[in-house]
Amino acid sequence: MARTGRILINSDMGEAFGLHTFGNDPDLLRIVDLANVACGFHAGDPGIMRETVALATESGVRVGAHPGLPDLVGFGRRRMALRPDEAADLVVYQTGALVGFLDAVGEPLSHIKPHGALWGMLAADADLMRAVARAVKAFDVPFLGLADTAHESVCAEAGVPFVGELYVDMDYNADGTLALARSARRTDPAAAAERVAKALAGEPVASVDGTPVDVRFQSVCVHSDSPDAPDVARAVRAVVDARTPRED
Amino acid sequence: MARTGRILINSDMGEAFGLHTFGNDPDLLRIVDLANVACGFHAGDPGIMRETVALATESGVRVGAHPGLPDLVGFGRRRMALRPDEAADLVVYQTGALVGFLDAVGEPLSHIKPHGALWGMLAADADLMRAVARAVKAFDVPFLGLADTAHESVCAEAGVPFVGELYVDMDYNADGTLALARSARRTDPAAAAERVAKALAGEPVASVDGTPVDVRFQSVCVHSDSPDAPDVARAVRAVVDARTPRED
Amino acid sequence: MARTGRILINSDMGEAFGLHTFGNDPDLLRIVDLANVACGFHAGDPGIMRETVALATESGVRVGAHPGLPDLVGFGRRRMALRPDEAADLVVYQTGALVGFLDAVGEPLSHIKPHGALWGMLAADADLMRAVARAVKAFDVPFLGLADTAHESVCAEAGVPFVGELYVDMDYNADGTLALARSARRTDPAAAAERVAKALAGEPVASVDGTPVDVRFQSVCVHSDSPDAPDVARAVRAVVDARTPRED
Amino acid sequence: MARTGRILINSDMGEAFGLHTFGNDPDLLRIVDLANVACGFHAGDPGIMRETVALATESGVRVGAHPGLPDLVGFGRRRMALRPDEAADLVVYQTGALVGFLDAVGEPLSHIKPHGALWGMLAADADLMRAVARAVKAFDVPFLGLADTAHESVCAEAGVPFVGELYVDMDYNADGTLALARSARRTDPAAAAERVAKALAGEPVASVDGTPVDVRFQSVCVHSDSPDAPDVARAVRAVVDARTPRED
Repeated sequence: MARTGRILINSDMGEAFGLHTFGNDPDLLRIVDLANVACGFHAGDPGIMRETVALATESGVRVGAHPGLPDLVGFGRRRMALRPDEAADLVVYQTGALVGFLDAVGEPLSHIKPHGALWGMLAADADLMRAVARAVKAFDVPFLGLADTAHESVCAEAGVPFVGELYVDMDYNADGTLALARSARRTDPAAAAERVAKALAGEPVASVDGTPVDVRFQSVCVHSDSPDAPDVARAVRAVVDARTPRED
Repeated sequence: MARTGRILINSDMGEAFGLHTFGNDPDLLRIVDLANVACGFHAGDPGIMRETVALATESGVRVGAHPGLPDLVGFGRRRMALRPDEAADLVVYQTGALVGFLDAVGEPLSHIKPHGALWGMLAADADLMRAVARAVKAFDVPFLGLADTAHESVCAEAGVPFVGELYVDMDYNADGTLALARSARRTDPAAAAERVAKALAGEPVASVDGTPVDVRFQSVCVHSDSPDAPDVARAVRAVVDARTPRED
Repeated sequence: MARTGRILINSDMGEAFGLHTFGNDPDLLRIVDLANVACGFHAGDPGIMRETVALATESGVRVGAHPGLPDLVGFGRRRMALRPDEAADLVVYQTGALVGFLDAVGEPLSHIKPHGALWGMLAADADLMRAVARAVKAFDVPFLGLADTAHESVCAEAGVPFVGELYVDMDYNADGTLALARSARRTDPAAAAERVAKALAGEPVASVDGTPVDVRFQSVCVHSDSPDAPDVARAVRAVVDARTPRED
Repeated sequence: MARTGRILINSDMGEAFGLHTFGNDPDLLRIVDLANVACGFHAGDPGIMRETVALATESGVRVGAHPGLPDLVGFGRRRMALRPDEAADLVVYQTGALVGFLDAVGEPLSHIKPHGALWGMLAADADLMRAVARAVKAFDVPFLGLADTAHESVCAEAGVPFVGELYVDMDYNADGTLALARSARRTDPAAAAERVAKALAGEPVASVDGTPVDVRFQSVCVHSDSPDAPDVARAVRAVVDARTPRED
């Protein structure tokens, strides 16, 4: 995957639940390119999905599905031992539900990016990922994930377009996987911008123990649940636009 | 709505949940024309939805959505005070999820028929029904419901095709509405067949207090959760086929 | 019920859910006397219940149960058609769960106050309230509710101690019932204080249409989910303490 | 633990859910000594808990808690990555809820036996088990589990009485752990009886690969969800009573 194309910024959105607000969606929607919208299993509910689709569409942000494990209390961040058919069924159900809201406003589904522990399980388990890739293929959209894991290799096998991501608010392990945490932490906008600038220049990212990690990516992910998410997103936007000007 | 067309038999399906089996789906799928498939809110889960879609498709039975209230313990049979937008969002979410499974096997959505208390709420409340009718219109399929209620009048207003149903295993109230029960009861196949025969001949149905009720319908509903559901369905099938031969 | 006793201030607490924070519990716990702790059906989860019990106990605030309808998305604010046995079972289950956390730290259960729509349903329906009163009696604690409704009359019948509440952040209807809203609104601390002062002086409260409503009460409720809840609570505390000094 | 005491037969009960029936509780309650009652997270709901407590009490069967993972669709049989505090909180919440129903009829809690994947996680992970053992200790009842695992060793550490179980309808692995399955299988009553007879005589149980496994136990578990569960329970009862006559 060449690093010469337009770099898109994606962010997880619609992770409120009932009366419980979450994240900084309205602010971030002015900055990012792609919204990964929660589908009700780890967060989100039907009303929030409709509202998030409307907000994103008004902002010209393309909407993808962000399906998660069926675990509201754990916010989809606790691994569960699923069979491949169960993982695929979760993705079909949640993505289909989101497509219902997109169809109602005449917008297409942009992509699928699994959430949290499901994302991590799919990166590590090719059998699980194979079942999910078949589900993604039926929706005929790209899969956003981590290069050099089962995300990428199984997408290649299955003929699903793959978009690699760079993460700016999470730590990389020495083996290039991500250190998934149960709750958000504060991220320094300048450090996030620096990571993106280096990665765009083809330099490796420093992992938690200092081992350099080469990350191939076409999209940068900014999480919405840290208090400074809009600042991080703006800093990343500036770096990305300097390199690949935003078309308006 | 004329009584001269082909009369379809519909049945609620896929109302199992996890390890919990429910109803007589495999038997009924050999008899009925339309399956109203539960979508996970009152019953059903992603795996059961996939399996029910597969079973129905193999049997040549067309699949519609059977969205319900978010109440697994109450099986969607306890009324909830929803706002119109909430009722519509529930229908979009659940129907979209089912369409995900249908798309995966290349089958179209046939119709939408709400479940249980949601069905009853929509029959009685035109505002609620208006919001839901807009959601149904976006899926571009007919709505199955009860003639001479808000189901029919609002579908007419909204330009949604309406298919009236005759019920053979529930009591009619004197005003033509249905006496919704919390659990299934035994139904006599002969009595069910007789009700269909009379109704097809243009005769009224006897309500609980004996008042005759005129029911306009194009479809007959047989519930799957009574122990004798397949016998009831076969008896109804015989009467319907005598009148309007089944095309194979 | 005489107005001469010590007036207690109560507040709904522990209404966070998973990663979703809610309300101003730590601030309010420095001000109020009684915490009505959510029990997982409308909000709260096992971890939040344990933490809320610990926080309240450290603050010397007594803990009661705040059971709600099984409706996380609607925050227990959407009425559901429950049978009396179902309403009672919900109260037993949720209160028992909270008692588990109280027992673990050696604290007694102080009281039971139903939440939201369940509270309103019990005020209006004596049959429902009778079943719940039997459940409350088994826990041997007082019931907090609205005087001159089924809350009070059925508690009297059933031999359950009743504590009437005054609400400072909700509107009274002309018939003395409360106008339950789906989401919190801003409350003026001075207006709240004035309502308490007048009510303590034996004067009626103005309802939404101006009709004076006489509210008998031994406790004042301050909701935790408005942004100014701690200010409202402090204003109410000042009025209450001026009348009935706080024992420390 | 000596094999000379009275051997009790325990069975998981109350695993129905809403309208969905499950197992053979009424039949089994005439045969067994201890009911492990589901508490709403993997199966069961408040109404079923009340009814199961009533049925067990009428039958003279003692009631323990059978807490599970929060996974109704997976019936608590899919492992989840929980923190120790989360595992303990689940046990406190669910056991407390059951104690609410027991208190209402004046019956004591007999024991705690975790369900499914939680049971397996606690057998294998001493840290998780330590947190749960503290929770069990607060309820002051024995823990039912598998000898020679963290169940037993951590109970010894924590001062929680431990009761080892023999399983008659599941396979033992060569290391003495159990091969947990996602759904029930048919069990031959004669084979179950033979396993109990041998184990009572101090002989090892054959594991899946033939390796003999020595199982220390004071209780025999018969699952309720196989179609022949009552026959299995009667066969086990006969063997147990021949050895240790039932007191009536």
